[in-house]
Amino acid sequence: MWQVPRRQIAVCGPGECSPQEAEAARAVGRLLAVHGAVVLCGGYGGVMAAAAAGAREAGGVVVGVLSGRDRSGASPDLTVALPTGMGEARNALIVRAADAIVVVGGSWGTLSELALAQRGGTSVITLGGWRVLDAEGRPVPGPVAAAGPAEAVRLALAAAERVRPLSP
Amino acid sequence: MWQVPRRQIAVCGPGECSPQEAEAARAVGRLLAVHGAVVLCGGYGGVMAAAAAGAREAGGVVVGVLSGRDRSGASPDLTVALPTGMGEARNALIVRAADAIVVVGGSWGTLSELALAQRGGTSVITLGGWRVLDAEGRPVPGPVAAAGPAEAVRLALAAAERVRPLSP
Amino acid sequence: MWQVPRRQIAVCGPGECSPQEAEAARAVGRLLAVHGAVVLCGGYGGVMAAAAAGAREAGGVVVGVLSGRDRSGASPDLTVALPTGMGEARNALIVRAADAIVVVGGSWGTLSELALAQRGGTSVITLGGWRVLDAEGRPVPGPVAAAGPAEAVRLALAAAERVRPLSP
Amino acid sequence: MWQVPRRQIAVCGPGECSPQEAEAARAVGRLLAVHGAVVLCGGYGGVMAAAAAGAREAGGVVVGVLSGRDRSGASPDLTVALPTGMGEARNALIVRAADAIVVVGGSWGTLSELALAQRGGTSVITLGGWRVLDAEGRPVPGPVAAAGPAEAVRLALAAAERVRPLSP
Repeated sequence: MWQVPRRQIAVCGPGECSPQEAEAARAVGRLLAVHGAVVLCGGYGGVMAAAAAGAREAGGVVVGVLSGRDRSGASPDLTVALPTGMGEARNALIVRAADAIVVVGGSWGTLSELALAQRGGTSVITLGGWRVLDAEGRPVPGPVAAAGPAEAVRLALAAAERVRPLSP
Repeated sequence: MWQVPRRQIAVCGPGECSPQEAEAARAVGRLLAVHGAVVLCGGYGGVMAAAAAGAREAGGVVVGVLSGRDRSGASPDLTVALPTGMGEARNALIVRAADAIVVVGGSWGTLSELALAQRGGTSVITLGGWRVLDAEGRPVPGPVAAAGPAEAVRLALAAAERVRPLSP
Repeated sequence: MWQVPRRQIAVCGPGECSPQEAEAARAVGRLLAVHGAVVLCGGYGGVMAAAAAGAREAGGVVVGVLSGRDRSGASPDLTVALPTGMGEARNALIVRAADAIVVVGGSWGTLSELALAQRGGTSVITLGGWRVLDAEGRPVPGPVAAAGPAEAVRLALAAAERVRPLSP
Repeated sequence: MWQVPRRQIAVCGPGECSPQEAEAARAVGRLLAVHGAVVLCGGYGGVMAAAAAGAREAGGVVVGVLSGRDRSGASPDLTVALPTGMGEARNALIVRAADAIVVVGGSWGTLSELALAQRGGTSVITLGGWRVLDAEGRPVPGPVAAAGPAEAVRLALAAAERVRPLSP
């Protein structure tokens, strides 16, 4: 069992997703675990469950930060399920605890996590999903699009290393 | 002094804004107060301070839900300043306590509030600001653009009336 | 309408209380309002409702920080009802936003507020209620017992003045 | 690596403690891990660090729910360190995520966790620490005193089994 300091990367995405998004999230979870990172997520279905399943396949640690007051509906692949009873305010906790976040797909909840990460200076790597334009119709800089799960994981780990180096 | 049940409408926007945005936020705050609504905001500068100033001009009640642990930096126009010590997780509280939100201008923090409101089923009225496109480049439905402060306030109060009627 | 800087004093106590406790809480709320302080409370029944009623009688501003996701069950005497959707974690918010707290009566939720206030360096004035002994059976220093509502309010306002002077 | 459903038991106690309290907390952490329970704690020093060290010795999973915005000061024995940026409001999260809590020693922060657990219906097992008396000077029922770490763990696991049975 690894202990801290380890990387902690959140995988954020909708609770209902396409098969392609689930496949991507599973690959991201698996690759993060292979690289020794703890995976954080919202703990329920869709992208969250797929990321948890991927992390578990690789023998990793995956923490679900739940919106509910108990563990109802939590993915069975979580190592730890943390019911917060805080509703969607828990999105801020997922982001705060992460060294970087990987976004797979789009939803309003997912976008709130992306926005909170950018607000707090946490790197955001995206695999598809929604885009944000400013008032002039230009993409707002910040989130970095990855071509696939492997690149997303590589970029997230590199961003995490910049803000909190593990190596001496 | 009015007591509950009253409307509670949040005005969300960046802590640094253009003179035009400040003017719009001030008008929104003033009109909300004129219509008897409590104004909620993040309690600091920019759009938040302008909305507070507007509400105060009209003799209204305006509550600032602060991210910090104390009242440092709070707008002097607030009726009540609530330091939460929760950082940006407080954005979820502003949205949760509102019957509808009016967004003036764009920033990552503001976008997180817009997204949390949409996620939770709270109506969002926008005056300028950022736009959200889905993966196919189409605007994601939900937020309603207003032509000016008066229309924004009218739409916000109407949305609030739909979800929580005050009249018998 | 006064604006900040004003005193903000929380009145904490059980949601079900004796007539004597209700009477004391009402007097505390009224006297705080008479002295220009904003009253904070948990927003529901018992001591909370009595404090709100007292503050309203005196034309004061009283804010209820609710545990629930909406305003169901909120006291009708609140100026502003803030549903947090955070459950009992909202107790920390009530305490954080207060310059001092007055405790009327005892319950586990009330004790959590007393303890969080002491932990964070916020003065606690008590009118009856539970007592805390250390492992040797001695009272743990900190909370100050008042003889009645008038003394409780005087002590709370004096404590608030020490930590955050209003006068120049 | 076990996955959920597992027991999740919080160990709560002061950030500065006596050698005896540290020894007890370490034994509690170790025994919880031996029995397959995830250990939750506040993630810093004193009782928290001792519980984390004990859990790690036994190869267990231990999660620190931190009050700070980053991992500064976190125990190196944690499997996962979750900075919440919420200050002492995080105490409510530790309690909410636990099936039962074991209290070792006394402090105001610790008492807030004990009180929040009792408020929310979560079983509390104590090893020493502070005591709570009602207005008539009688112990308030609820917390169960254990004679030592082994009994504390046994009682906590039994309480957890009552509320959330793992066995079919």
